[in-house]
Amino acid sequence: MAQDSTGISLRQLAERCGVELAGDGQILIDRIAPLDAAGRGAIAFLSSPRYRIHLGTTSASAVIVTPGDAGATTLPKLITSNPYATYARVAALLHPTTPPAPGVHPTAVVAASARLAPDATIGPHAVIGERTAIASHACIGAGVVVGDDCSVAEDCVLYPNVVLYARSSLGARTIVHSGAVIGADGFGMAEEAGHWVKVPQIGRVVIGADVEIGANTTIDRGAIGDTVIEDDVKLDNQIQIGHNCRIGAHTAIAGCVGIAGSTKIGRNCKIGGAAMIAGHLEIADGTVIGAASGIGDSITVAGVYNGALPAMPQREWMRLLVALQRLRSLVERVRALEQGRAKKES
Amino acid sequence: MAQDSTGISLRQLAERCGVELAGDGQILIDRIAPLDAAGRGAIAFLSSPRYRIHLGTTSASAVIVTPGDAGATTLPKLITSNPYATYARVAALLHPTTPPAPGVHPTAVVAASARLAPDATIGPHAVIGERTAIASHACIGAGVVVGDDCSVAEDCVLYPNVVLYARSSLGARTIVHSGAVIGADGFGMAEEAGHWVKVPQIGRVVIGADVEIGANTTIDRGAIGDTVIEDDVKLDNQIQIGHNCRIGAHTAIAGCVGIAGSTKIGRNCKIGGAAMIAGHLEIADGTVIGAASGIGDSITVAGVYNGALPAMPQREWMRLLVALQRLRSLVERVRALEQGRAKKES
Amino acid sequence: MAQDSTGISLRQLAERCGVELAGDGQILIDRIAPLDAAGRGAIAFLSSPRYRIHLGTTSASAVIVTPGDAGATTLPKLITSNPYATYARVAALLHPTTPPAPGVHPTAVVAASARLAPDATIGPHAVIGERTAIASHACIGAGVVVGDDCSVAEDCVLYPNVVLYARSSLGARTIVHSGAVIGADGFGMAEEAGHWVKVPQIGRVVIGADVEIGANTTIDRGAIGDTVIEDDVKLDNQIQIGHNCRIGAHTAIAGCVGIAGSTKIGRNCKIGGAAMIAGHLEIADGTVIGAASGIGDSITVAGVYNGALPAMPQREWMRLLVALQRLRSLVERVRALEQGRAKKES
Repeated sequence: MAQDSTGISLRQLAERCGVELAGDGQILIDRIAPLDAAGRGAIAFLSSPRYRIHLGTTSASAVIVTPGDAGATTLPKLITSNPYATYARVAALLHPTTPPAPGVHPTAVVAASARLAPDATIGPHAVIGERTAIASHACIGAGVVVGDDCSVAEDCVLYPNVVLYARSSLGARTIVHSGAVIGADGFGMAEEAGHWVKVPQIGRVVIGADVEIGANTTIDRGAIGDTVIEDDVKLDNQIQIGHNCRIGAHTAIAGCVGIAGSTKIGRNCKIGGAAMIAGHLEIADGTVIGAASGIGDSITVAGVYNGALPAMPQREWMRLLVALQRLRSLVERVRALEQGRAKKES
Repeated sequence: MAQDSTGISLRQLAERCGVELAGDGQILIDRIAPLDAAGRGAIAFLSSPRYRIHLGTTSASAVIVTPGDAGATTLPKLITSNPYATYARVAALLHPTTPPAPGVHPTAVVAASARLAPDATIGPHAVIGERTAIASHACIGAGVVVGDDCSVAEDCVLYPNVVLYARSSLGARTIVHSGAVIGADGFGMAEEAGHWVKVPQIGRVVIGADVEIGANTTIDRGAIGDTVIEDDVKLDNQIQIGHNCRIGAHTAIAGCVGIAGSTKIGRNCKIGGAAMIAGHLEIADGTVIGAASGIGDSITVAGVYNGALPAMPQREWMRLLVALQRLRSLVERVRALEQGRAKKES
Repeated sequence: MAQDSTGISLRQLAERCGVELAGDGQILIDRIAPLDAAGRGAIAFLSSPRYRIHLGTTSASAVIVTPGDAGATTLPKLITSNPYATYARVAALLHPTTPPAPGVHPTAVVAASARLAPDATIGPHAVIGERTAIASHACIGAGVVVGDDCSVAEDCVLYPNVVLYARSSLGARTIVHSGAVIGADGFGMAEEAGHWVKVPQIGRVVIGADVEIGANTTIDRGAIGDTVIEDDVKLDNQIQIGHNCRIGAHTAIAGCVGIAGSTKIGRNCKIGGAAMIAGHLEIADGTVIGAASGIGDSITVAGVYNGALPAMPQREWMRLLVALQRLRSLVERVRALEQGRAKKES
């Protein structure tokens, strides 16, 4: 958890972030704040031109700016080509998380055959299954249930009430937020004589290193093979990922996205919130999908894709719906007009 | 939990709800029922003209009606300008909830520095963090995890398996349903050399009084400042609220809505189910947004906004899609026709 | 949980699945695999013509095919009119689940008045409420909370951290995945003088036999009557079902679907992922609704319904939006052209 800070000198921040210092390096910085709300002791950052207007009037003690913006302020500053990334590093230095005390809480239930690193943390009422391995410095929160035959690598953090079904695997430094469910059965059943026969979901969920999984996100286990989330994938809250999907490395997916089974998302993709992606598709590396867009076909050429209608005042919307109903007849009417003209012209 | 009722006289119901009584006030009412399914002992209500047809034939012992509908039935009745609100009050009187026994269940894990009101209830396997305050008559359900430095005000109800991350705050009488996650990290990361740098989420979630939060809804903590849910906000299930959002007082949001980060929703708004609202927007007080609408721009003028296409039979839909593909060329063809006519007319 | 297999003869598989055997029935099958990834010991299946190309080149030891495809391979085979259903049965035989050891884990909290079958399994940290009945061979996972007055029939499986609110009822063999919340209050409140009055949610959730409920799905209790999920309904993850809905038998609903209150879905329906269905509707038996479609009106005639716009490259999308804005004026311009022509023709 983030803690209050007691202050770090601007020079130290520059050195530890590996960026250029300009101005008084002795001043103490004790917190991060937005440009327009910062006061003495705070450092603010400018990454979007949209907020440049605040640069001249901020009460921050220091700022983080690009070389191009450095001349626009006389404040002490950190100069970097990527102010947002530097801000992220400064925030982490100013608000370090306290590592939880290692050890197994007396109320946790750990299977006899589980292997726990001595410096792992197992929280109250957590449950660790048979043959499951919890690596060094991993932190299993209160009420987390890790099934049998799972593997949780070093420095993972599982927040309270996460569930990992049996045979799930997490890479190093992966963070899973509360309520996420990893490895539930995929949605597979065969229709027979008007009833459903459940298709056993035999695969696993395999998650790479440096992944972050948001609260109440669900990732289903594979039907035969595995569902795979590659390294450095970032998933927001309430995302649903169907069985046998693969999400490529460094891809970021915003909240409420649904991805149906067996779809392969490429590397370095960015998917906007509430986008819905059908099953059995392939999405090219580097594809950007707008919020609330529906993807029904594979995308073979990277680019920006969109498909969300913007809402409008109710009366306009009703008129548009009426016009849409007439659209097909309109096509025919225009054709008739064209033929009429052609007739006259002939 | 709602309990069976042993009956209250109609007169008592009128007095306790502060509404007018007409007819026999001695009859005993022991339950609520719909007009068309009510029998002896039941009270039914009419709030929508749509159901007025049942008023003449209902077998209810009494009804709740507006002054305008009072003449349409000879049954004993409660007369009120707001039958639905009176129904809500009558239902609460007929089906009172049993307050749970105060005290801390022996399996709960309560940090030494937590402050619990003596008449609060802490359920089985609940976990209460360091320095967290649980106020009078608050009820923390089984398996709930309340992080460090949280504040839960009087009469709050947290249903089983809710999670509050550290430093979250709930106002009086707020209800949080099972699986809701309050205060998980917002979705913030900076891109750098093809990798993601996590942006520490330092802010909190601050929730007002009389709020209700649905099952599996997620509300992320602020990145720098706080995410704020004002008094009397009602959130249905599976809503996602991003970091640094503010939801104005008395706003009601139906299920499956997603609100991206830093958006400010005004007071007294009504947002339909599955609406998707982009980040960094401002929505005016009193705005009504239709179900499944996509909001990509700020709304500065209150009104009703809509944008959800209605589904249609597959063949019609395919034809509409084809017509939409031709829409741009249609604009050009009409222009050509207009110019042709203009030419002839000239 | 699925276990590794030691092998079953093809003849045994044919007999236990009740399908025709062709070729060497002595070969041992120890796993299921896709046609194009199968090796020695594996059985693969062909149900879609899309994958027929792999039938000639597969390294599987045996295949499951229709009578029509049987001639296309010389491999030992199971011949069946429904290869997918046979695959499901074979997979279950090859990967049998180990029934959990019956009994109550010492950390579970079971109310004194609960009635547990002696061969039921109650996992670590589970909580069972007053007067609740857990039937024979039911398995209540770790951290599950079952409220008061619930009924869980024989052979049910509740995965970790499921919550059943009071008075919920599950039929035989029903499976509920982790994080699902059954019986939370419906979204009901009456507006009065700018504030909300909570409407008590007095009904229950009643779930039939052979139902499967996905991870983090939520089903609200009825306001007055009950919310009902009939037999053999299959619900994927992150579905939201409002109060007083009824879902007809054998209906299957994919992930992320939202169904608002009081809607009745018929029997044998198939609803695609992320479809959004408004409240107070009736959907005919056998209706098929496409993914991401919005349903705002009742469907009285079974058929396939669709309404999801496909995303497209950003530039095309922007042009389409502009054309849509001109659509209404286009209707008027075409009318003007028609009248101009009519004038000339007269």
